[in-house]
Amino acid sequence: MTAPVSIEITARDGEARAGVLHTPHGSVPTPTFMPVGTKGTVKGLTPGDLETIGAGVVLGNTYHLYFRPGPDIVREAGGLHGFSGWGGPMLTDSGGYQVFSLAKTRKLSEEGVEFASVYDGSIHAFTPELTTRVQEDLGADIAMALDECPPANAEREYHRESLRRTARWAERCKEAHTRSGQSLFGIVQGGLSPDLREESLSLTTDIGFDGYAVGGLSVGESREEMLGMLSLVSPNLPADKPRYFMGIGDPAGILEVIRLGVDMFDCVLPTRLARHGSVLTKDGRMNLKNARFRRDFSPLDAECGCEACSGYTRAYLSHLVREDEMLGHRLLTYHNVHFVTELCREARGRIEAGDFERWMEGFRRRVSGGAKN
Amino acid sequence: MTAPVSIEITARDGEARAGVLHTPHGSVPTPTFMPVGTKGTVKGLTPGDLETIGAGVVLGNTYHLYFRPGPDIVREAGGLHGFSGWGGPMLTDSGGYQVFSLAKTRKLSEEGVEFASVYDGSIHAFTPELTTRVQEDLGADIAMALDECPPANAEREYHRESLRRTARWAERCKEAHTRSGQSLFGIVQGGLSPDLREESLSLTTDIGFDGYAVGGLSVGESREEMLGMLSLVSPNLPADKPRYFMGIGDPAGILEVIRLGVDMFDCVLPTRLARHGSVLTKDGRMNLKNARFRRDFSPLDAECGCEACSGYTRAYLSHLVREDEMLGHRLLTYHNVHFVTELCREARGRIEAGDFERWMEGFRRRVSGGAKN
Repeated sequence: MTAPVSIEITARDGEARAGVLHTPHGSVPTPTFMPVGTKGTVKGLTPGDLETIGAGVVLGNTYHLYFRPGPDIVREAGGLHGFSGWGGPMLTDSGGYQVFSLAKTRKLSEEGVEFASVYDGSIHAFTPELTTRVQEDLGADIAMALDECPPANAEREYHRESLRRTARWAERCKEAHTRSGQSLFGIVQGGLSPDLREESLSLTTDIGFDGYAVGGLSVGESREEMLGMLSLVSPNLPADKPRYFMGIGDPAGILEVIRLGVDMFDCVLPTRLARHGSVLTKDGRMNLKNARFRRDFSPLDAECGCEACSGYTRAYLSHLVREDEMLGHRLLTYHNVHFVTELCREARGRIEAGDFERWMEGFRRRVSGGAKN
Repeated sequence: MTAPVSIEITARDGEARAGVLHTPHGSVPTPTFMPVGTKGTVKGLTPGDLETIGAGVVLGNTYHLYFRPGPDIVREAGGLHGFSGWGGPMLTDSGGYQVFSLAKTRKLSEEGVEFASVYDGSIHAFTPELTTRVQEDLGADIAMALDECPPANAEREYHRESLRRTARWAERCKEAHTRSGQSLFGIVQGGLSPDLREESLSLTTDIGFDGYAVGGLSVGESREEMLGMLSLVSPNLPADKPRYFMGIGDPAGILEVIRLGVDMFDCVLPTRLARHGSVLTKDGRMNLKNARFRRDFSPLDAECGCEACSGYTRAYLSHLVREDEMLGHRLLTYHNVHFVTELCREARGRIEAGDFERWMEGFRRRVSGGAKN
C-alpha cells in the first residue's frame, strides 16, 4: 500500500536531491520551503496569494490551533484545509516544540508533558496519543510525532534519556495514528553527539514512518555544528522517504541543508523578518527602516517579479513599514515567501543540471558580499 | 475653461442625484463613497484590491502625510499617485480637521493655526498657503481649502467668527493655488445655525470653487440636527458642481445624505469597523468576535460576492479577528469597502429608476430590524 505522502526522487547532485512530493492535496516539486501558517494563516497572505507565489506545503502549529480555535472547530470545518481555504498540501507539527520553547512551567514524564498555556496559564498535558488525535482533527497531509526538543547545550546524559523517550513516544504516536489519507513522520533527535544521533536515527527508522524529520538543530548551536550533525544523519535516512529539516529559513542555510539531501524545511524567519521590515534578496537582507530607503524610488528587488516588486517603490514600502501599516507587512511577507520559494525552484534546476555546488558557492559569495542592513 | 474636476448630473430623484465625476485620473459614477487612505494606503488593501472593488476616489490625509513621509518625498515620487501606485482619482483634505481633532495644544489666529504634532509634540503651523502648497505636492485630483472645524456645541458667536475666518482662509487658498490638473474645493461651515450656514454658503460660493464640501457636521450633533443642516445647505449649493459631505460612512447615513443631493462622502468608519471585527451587511452590523460565530460555517455575507465572502467562513474570519491576525483585518476591510461601494452603486440605480426614496425606506427597515452585534 502506498503511503498517503511519498517522494519520488528525479535527480541527484552529490547528496542533494530533486524530486516530487506526492500528497493527497497535490504534488510539490522538491526541495521545498514550507511557509508557516502558525494559527491557520500565513500572516497577511490569502490562499490565493500562496497559490500565485507557488507555495507548496503550508504548515500549521498544533500548539496554537489546539488552544485557538480548538481542534473540534477545525474538524467541523473540514480540517485545516476547509477551515483556512488552502487547498494544497499541509503539514502540522506536534506542538512539542512550542511546549518546550514557549511554556514557562512544564513537567515531563514518560506519559507526556504538562505545561502552562501561553494564552491563559491554564495547565494542559500533551501526550503522544493526544497530539496525534489533535493532528487527525486538523487533518493535514502530514502529521508529526510528538518529540522532546532539548536545548543543544543540555547534558549528554539528558540527550540520551530524551531521545529514547522520544522514540517510545514516536511508537505510541504510530500506534495511535489511524487517519487514512494522512502520513505520520518521525523525528530524529540526539543533540550534538554523533552516536546519539545515530541511535535516534536507528530507533526512529526501526519504528518506520512515511517520512523523517531532523529535529533539535537550529536551536542555538553554531551553523557548523548544525551542518556537521545533519551531514551525519541525512545520508543515512531511508533514501526513498521524504526528509524534513525543522527550522531553517535563511537563504544560505536553505542551500546548505539542500546540499545535504534535505527535501523540505520550514521556518518563521522569512515571514517574521518581513513584519520587521526586512526583505531577502540575492545581495543579502535589506531593512527598509534604514534611512537610505526613504527616497529610494527603485523597485524593492529589481531581480524579482513578485507583486511587491512590480507595483511599488522602496520609498513607499519603507514609509509603510515605518508607519507599521498592514499593507507594508503584507507586501514584504509576500516578497519574502516568494523569494525563498523561487530560491528552491532555482536550486532544483541546478540539481537537475548537476551544478548545484558551484551555483551555491556563487550565491553564497554574492550574499555575503552584498548589502547587510 | 473646464475645471480639472467636474460633475455631470445624469439623473435626479427628488433632491438625490446620480452623475459622473470627471477627474484627470478617470471618471467615477456618483454618488460615491471615498475610502480613506490616511497615510497613503487604505489599511491592508492594495491598489489592485481597490480597483477590483470598484472604488472611485481615494482619500489621503494631508496632516499625516505632511509629517510622514513628508510632502517633498511624495512630490519626488510623482505625487500620491506615483507614491502609492493608485492610478484612479484622489482627494486630499487640508489637514485642518486633524489639527482640530488630534492636536493637544493649538493657537488659532488670522494667519493660521499653530499646533503640536501628534507624532512627536513638535510645534508646527498650518496656514492656508502652506496646506495648499503641501496639497499641490501631494498632487491629488482634488485639494481642499483649509477650514476650522469647531465643535458642534461651540457658542454661536464663535461659529460666526470662525466661518468668516474660514471664508477668508478659503480665499487665500484659492489665491495660493496654482497647480493645473488639480481642483480646489471650498468648505461650508456654520455649526447648527441655519443663518450661519447660509452666510458660510454664500461667502464660499462667492469666492467660487470647482466643488463644495459641507463640513462641521457628523461631529457630535444628533443625526436629526445633522440632516436638518444638510437639507438647508445642499440644495442651495451650485447645482453644476460636485457636493461633498465630509465624514459619513454608516450605510443608513450614506443613504440619508445621498437623498439630500450629496455626490461624494468619506469616512474611516467602514475600514475602522473592519479592524475591530465588525462587518456591514444589509441586516446591520455583525461583530465577528461574538461567540455565536465561532462555529458558524456559513459565508460572511451570503448576499455579497466579494473576495472575503466567497472564500471563507464566518468561523474562520472570527478566529482570525479574535487572534488579531492581519488576514482577518485585510479581508474584513475588503468586504466593508466593497459593501459601501456596492451600496452607492445600488443607490445610483435607484435614483436612475426614480424609486430611491421607497428603496431607501426598505433598506432602513431591514437594517434596523436586523442583527446588531
